[in-house]
Amino acid sequence: MRIGVVGLGSMGYGIAGSLLRAGHEVVGADVSPTAVARFQQDGGATADIHSLASELDALVIVVLNAVQAEDVLFGAQGLVDELSAACVVTLCVTVSPDYARGAAERCAARGIAFLDAPISGGSAKAAQGKLSIMASGTAEAFAKARPALDGMAETVFELGDTAGVGSAMKAVNQMLAGVHIAAMAEAITFGITQGIDPATFMTVIPRCAGTSWMLENRAPHIVAGDYTAHSAVDIWPKDLGIVLDAARSAKFAAPVTAAALQQFLAASGMGFGREDDAAVAKVYARNTGIVLPGEGD
Amino acid sequence: MRIGVVGLGSMGYGIAGSLLRAGHEVVGADVSPTAVARFQQDGGATADIHSLASELDALVIVVLNAVQAEDVLFGAQGLVDELSAACVVTLCVTVSPDYARGAAERCAARGIAFLDAPISGGSAKAAQGKLSIMASGTAEAFAKARPALDGMAETVFELGDTAGVGSAMKAVNQMLAGVHIAAMAEAITFGITQGIDPATFMTVIPRCAGTSWMLENRAPHIVAGDYTAHSAVDIWPKDLGIVLDAARSAKFAAPVTAAALQQFLAASGMGFGREDDAAVAKVYARNTGIVLPGEGD
Repeated sequence: MRIGVVGLGSMGYGIAGSLLRAGHEVVGADVSPTAVARFQQDGGATADIHSLASELDALVIVVLNAVQAEDVLFGAQGLVDELSAACVVTLCVTVSPDYARGAAERCAARGIAFLDAPISGGSAKAAQGKLSIMASGTAEAFAKARPALDGMAETVFELGDTAGVGSAMKAVNQMLAGVHIAAMAEAITFGITQGIDPATFMTVIPRCAGTSWMLENRAPHIVAGDYTAHSAVDIWPKDLGIVLDAARSAKFAAPVTAAALQQFLAASGMGFGREDDAAVAKVYARNTGIVLPGEGD
Repeated sequence: MRIGVVGLGSMGYGIAGSLLRAGHEVVGADVSPTAVARFQQDGGATADIHSLASELDALVIVVLNAVQAEDVLFGAQGLVDELSAACVVTLCVTVSPDYARGAAERCAARGIAFLDAPISGGSAKAAQGKLSIMASGTAEAFAKARPALDGMAETVFELGDTAGVGSAMKAVNQMLAGVHIAAMAEAITFGITQGIDPATFMTVIPRCAGTSWMLENRAPHIVAGDYTAHSAVDIWPKDLGIVLDAARSAKFAAPVTAAALQQFLAASGMGFGREDDAAVAKVYARNTGIVLPGEGD
């Protein structure tokens, strides 16, 4: 089928390529002409997305945040008004459950199906078509989006017929993932103050009850002193902000998540926002006067 | 060899039994005569531990905390002064690194070898002789303790020749484990406020980046509404207290751990201290006015 992909960053570029390899006609769009040209060289359609909008079977949105999604769907770019009734909007952006619900309603008012479909797995899995998708929406939206989902994902969690639940599950996952990264950073640096070097930490903890998926994925960056961004510090003020906004609306006190957010904010404030999120360990290191692997002498 | 085991609670009873099955002569001791009698019926030596103290090759301490360990080793019971120079004290209690270092020094002053050997794995693994031990001490202490360690543990992490490092690694592990339990409770209850029931949470999150060992182990207790204590809430004020005391001494700010501790304190204050530590979820549920599985209607 014919699929538009808006947002050709590391996740969107991987998704667009996976959809191409799954046999779809794919038109990409991005604020960066370079990103668009790169995807066209890979085999993407050369037309502008607006010229093909009325012929799209699915529009997959992989921009950075709700502000950009709003612009693409309903704002300056206004793609929703250019789609035909055959098309399904598939929103892969991490947004608040409220935003997803509202976007679904606004699409429905125009006769357009909408799938709340945040993604998880990172850019490598995006490029392999092996993402996890936490999806919710009407049966019609699932049916229309199915070929695109199959091209993008290894696992599609079907979380019910109402937009918002997919984004809520993503928020729950990000809450845990963010806390686990901060906890890993807190523990590995505390260990240094107690005479345990990070390499020994990594030898022991992944085999003990204190381990987490994020610890095993991110702590090696600290051991190696390599903060090349696979996922940046600045993701977390955004994603934990979504979590804590939803929590505040629900009168839900989330002190552990709130504490983790402060550490990511400090990391960003110290100038590490574009580094890998394992760089939150630098906040602890500077606060306590220790040197991390690869730093200083 | 001849081994004394002091503390026949769920961990010590399992350890003493594992040492028996490994072919050792084992004398057990506990403040509860019932616990001692039970172990003697299993095949433990029937003598009082003090009458055999001078003939022990290893003394394994599995009491609840540093106060009890102090009483056993140097205080009212004063076993260290009854041991021969052939014996090694193997301290399996979760204590502060400072306490372990001091105990090692006091044993050394009496010519007794000391192994800082906190354990991880729970009572089932203790009974199977499959614990993990985070051990540090002199080569002499390791050599003398080896037959006992082999009978107790599947994995012995050898963390250097200085007492205190084993306890520091245990503290690091408990820091992570405690935070992960609180984070799990925070996330599963936040999910309820967002329309995600705990069973769905358990279907999705263990397959996503937000998972942890503790989440997969403890969240099922919440889904089942079963708070039978495998490991009690009241463990965490003790263990995270050790962590935060050591952190304070090191001028190490640990805001995520500190936030988690407050939630366990609240759980204990609400009367759930003897319940399974997953009951920390009840703090969140009461704070936000939701009903957990198995509660209410």
